[in-house]
Amino acid sequence: MAPLGRHLASEALGTAFLLAAVVGSGIMAERLAGGNVALALLCNTIPTGAILVVLVLIFGPLSGAHFNPAVSLAFALRRELTWGCAGAYVVAQLAGGIAGVWAAHAMFELPLWQVATTARMGVGQWLAEFIAAFGLLLTIFGCIANAPAATPYAVGLYITSAYWFTASTSFANPAVTIARSLSDTFAGIAPGGVLAFIAAQLAGAGAATMLAQWFWGRTPAPVKG
Amino acid sequence: MAPLGRHLASEALGTAFLLAAVVGSGIMAERLAGGNVALALLCNTIPTGAILVVLVLIFGPLSGAHFNPAVSLAFALRRELTWGCAGAYVVAQLAGGIAGVWAAHAMFELPLWQVATTARMGVGQWLAEFIAAFGLLLTIFGCIANAPAATPYAVGLYITSAYWFTASTSFANPAVTIARSLSDTFAGIAPGGVLAFIAAQLAGAGAATMLAQWFWGRTPAPVKG
Amino acid sequence: MAPLGRHLASEALGTAFLLAAVVGSGIMAERLAGGNVALALLCNTIPTGAILVVLVLIFGPLSGAHFNPAVSLAFALRRELTWGCAGAYVVAQLAGGIAGVWAAHAMFELPLWQVATTARMGVGQWLAEFIAAFGLLLTIFGCIANAPAATPYAVGLYITSAYWFTASTSFANPAVTIARSLSDTFAGIAPGGVLAFIAAQLAGAGAATMLAQWFWGRTPAPVKG
Amino acid sequence: MAPLGRHLASEALGTAFLLAAVVGSGIMAERLAGGNVALALLCNTIPTGAILVVLVLIFGPLSGAHFNPAVSLAFALRRELTWGCAGAYVVAQLAGGIAGVWAAHAMFELPLWQVATTARMGVGQWLAEFIAAFGLLLTIFGCIANAPAATPYAVGLYITSAYWFTASTSFANPAVTIARSLSDTFAGIAPGGVLAFIAAQLAGAGAATMLAQWFWGRTPAPVKG
Repeated sequence: MAPLGRHLASEALGTAFLLAAVVGSGIMAERLAGGNVALALLCNTIPTGAILVVLVLIFGPLSGAHFNPAVSLAFALRRELTWGCAGAYVVAQLAGGIAGVWAAHAMFELPLWQVATTARMGVGQWLAEFIAAFGLLLTIFGCIANAPAATPYAVGLYITSAYWFTASTSFANPAVTIARSLSDTFAGIAPGGVLAFIAAQLAGAGAATMLAQWFWGRTPAPVKG
Repeated sequence: MAPLGRHLASEALGTAFLLAAVVGSGIMAERLAGGNVALALLCNTIPTGAILVVLVLIFGPLSGAHFNPAVSLAFALRRELTWGCAGAYVVAQLAGGIAGVWAAHAMFELPLWQVATTARMGVGQWLAEFIAAFGLLLTIFGCIANAPAATPYAVGLYITSAYWFTASTSFANPAVTIARSLSDTFAGIAPGGVLAFIAAQLAGAGAATMLAQWFWGRTPAPVKG
Repeated sequence: MAPLGRHLASEALGTAFLLAAVVGSGIMAERLAGGNVALALLCNTIPTGAILVVLVLIFGPLSGAHFNPAVSLAFALRRELTWGCAGAYVVAQLAGGIAGVWAAHAMFELPLWQVATTARMGVGQWLAEFIAAFGLLLTIFGCIANAPAATPYAVGLYITSAYWFTASTSFANPAVTIARSLSDTFAGIAPGGVLAFIAAQLAGAGAATMLAQWFWGRTPAPVKG
Repeated sequence: MAPLGRHLASEALGTAFLLAAVVGSGIMAERLAGGNVALALLCNTIPTGAILVVLVLIFGPLSGAHFNPAVSLAFALRRELTWGCAGAYVVAQLAGGIAGVWAAHAMFELPLWQVATTARMGVGQWLAEFIAAFGLLLTIFGCIANAPAATPYAVGLYITSAYWFTASTSFANPAVTIARSLSDTFAGIAPGGVLAFIAAQLAGAGAATMLAQWFWGRTPAPVKG
C-alpha cells in the first residue's frame, strides 16, 4: 500500500471525478433531453456507471477506491482500516466531492456556489437509500471475497442498476449526498433531506457489513493505515 | 460450498434484488418516459441486465446464483443438485421474489399487495418464453463448460438481449413470473397467463438441458446438497 | 474440437439466435419507439451486440462461432479450415439464419414467409459494407492474435459501434444479408440489394485477411475439419 | 514490438476507425434522432466508446494504440518512446484521422472536403478539455500500472463518461480535434476553436503525466522505437 498522503489524494481525486461525472452529466443530459426525464436520467446513469469502473480500476490499488464514507466506515468496522484512517478518508472524500461539484459547475459556466432546491424526502426515499447502500456494500464485500478483479465492473454495474430501481436514484454515499446538496441542478438534493439520507445509508451499510460477514466471512487482510 | 441455510438465504436475497430491480426500474422508467414505451423498456432492460451480472458474481460461489426454478430443476436433471435441494431452492426463490416485488412497491410508495392486469397470452408469447428459457439455459451451461468466469456477464447480456428479441420481453423464470403477477405495474403479468408461461419456460429449459448435454457434456462436479 | 455434426449444429443454432435477435429486436423496437428511428435503432443495436457476446462465448469452443460465411471463407483462406468444411459451415449458417428469421416472425405472430421491401443500395452503402466487414475481420484476427479471451466482447462491441458508424447499419455478413432479405420488417433488405452487399462484404473481408497477415501473422493452428 | 512501419500503419488505421466512428455515428444519430440532441449524443457516445475498446484491444500490442498525439507525447515525456518516434506517431495519427473523417463522409455520400462551422470556445470549454485529457491520461497510466489487461475497457468507458460530464463532449485528443474541424456535421468544431482546445488538452495531459508519476511511478519498460 502507498503512504497515507497518496491514499488521501487518491480518495479526494477519485471522489472529485465521481461527483464531476454525476453532476456534469446531469447538467448536460437535462440541457439536451428536451424535457424527457427518462432520457435525461439514462444519460446521467451511463456516464456515472462508466466512470465508476474506471475510478475503481485505477485508484483501487492505491487507496481501495472507497470514495464513500459508508464504505470506509464499513472497512473500519471489519477492522481492515483503522478508525483514524477512516476519518481521514472521510475528510478527503468530502473535500474531493465538493471540488468535483465545483469543477462541473465551472465547466458548464454556472455559479460555483449553489444550494440545491430539489426536495428528496419521505419514507419511500429513505427505504430506497437503505436498500441502495445495503446492496452496494454487499456488492463490494461479495466481490472482494469471490472475484476481486471484477469489483470495478460490479460497482459500476450496481450503480447503473440502482439509479433506476431505487426510488431515490441511489445516492448510497454520504459524501455524494453532501456534495450534491451544493448543486441546484439535475442531480441536486435540498439540504433538508441530507441527514435522513445519510442515516439511511449508514444503516444499510451496517446491515450489509454484518450479513457479508455471515455470507463470506472476513478476508484475513491485515489492518492498514 | 456453504451450508444449506446460507444457500437458501443467497437464493432468496438474490431473487429479491432481481425482482426489486425488474419491478422498481419498470416503475421508474414508466413514470419518467413520457409515454414512450421503447424508452421505458430500455430503461427497464439496462438495470435488469446490470444487476444480474452483479448478483451472479457475488452469489454464484455461495449457491450457484440460480434465482430461477427452471435453472435449479435443470441442475437436478443433470444430477448436480439433489431433488430435495432443488425443491428448497424453489421455495426460497419464490419467497425472495415476492419480497423483492414488495420492496419495490414500498420504495415507490405503492400498495404492497397488488394483482397484475396486463394480459400476456397467446401462441407467440408462449413460443417466446420457450425460446427465452431455452437460450438462457444454453447460455448457462455453455459458459459453465467453456468460460465459467464469464457466466455473470453472459447471463446479464443474454437477458439484456432477450428483453427485446422475444415477443414476451423474456420472463424465462417461473419465480419471476409468479412474483410479477403480484405487481400491477410496467412489469406485471395478469395471473391468468402465469401457468402457460411457466409451462413454456420449463419446456424450453428441458430442451436446452438435453442439447447442452450433447454439445458440451456434463461437467463432472459431484452432486451437492 | 468437436466432430463435424456438432460444429454444424453450433453454427446453425448460433446464426439462428443471431438473426432472431436482429429481426426480433427490430420488430419490438419499431413497434414501441413511436416513430423515433434513432431510438428504434438503439433498441435494435444493444440486443444485437449483447447476444453476439453470448453466442461467441458459448459456441466459440465448439465451432469457432463464425455465424458468417465471410468469416468461414477467411479462415479457409488462412488455411485454418478446409474449403469443404467452410462450405458446410456456409450451408449451416444460411439454414440457421433463415430459421432464426422465421422464429422471430413466429414469436411476433407475423407471416413466416416474407420478402423485404426496404431498398438498400448505392455507392455509400457498398463502401459501408466493405468497411463494416473489413473492420469485423480485423477485430476477429486481431483478437485471436493478441487477446483470444476478449474475442466475444470485441465482436459484440464492434457490431454495436458499426451499426451506427456505417451508413448501411453494418450487415457485414452474407448469411445475415440473405436471411434479412426474407423479413419485411425494420431489419429487412430488399433482395435487389443483396448481391452487391455480399460482394462488398467479401471484398472487405479479403482485404482484412491480407492486412491481418501483415499485422499479426498467422496463428500456427493446424487445419481443422 | 513490431517494426516502425507496422507501428505507424497501426496508429493511422486505428485513428481512422476512431474518427470514422465518431463522425459517422454522429451523422447517423443526428439524421435519425428527430431533433432530440440528448438521444443523438447518446447514439454518438455508445459507438465511440465501443470502438475504442476494440481498437485498443487489437492495436495495443502493435503500436500501443495511442491514436492521440497527447498520449504519444506523454509517453515520450516518460521516456518510454523516443521523441522522433512520437513525432512519426503524430503524423500517422493526423493522416489517419483525416482519412477516417473522409471515409465517414463517403459512406454517408457527403462531400469529402468540409470545414466545420460549430463554434466550440470559451473558458468552460477549455477547462473541460483540460479535465478530459487529464482524466484520459490518468486512466491510461493508472491501468498500465495496475491492470494492463483492463486498459481497452477503461479507455472506452472513460470516453463514454466524458462525452457527457465535460462541457465540450471530451475531444481530449489533438488529432481528433483537427480531423473534426474538417467535418461540418454533428461532431464538427470550427477551426477557430482548434488551437485553444489543443493547448488545453496538452496542458491536461502534462499535468496527468506528472501526477501519475507520483501515484504509480514509471513502469520500467525500455525506451522503444
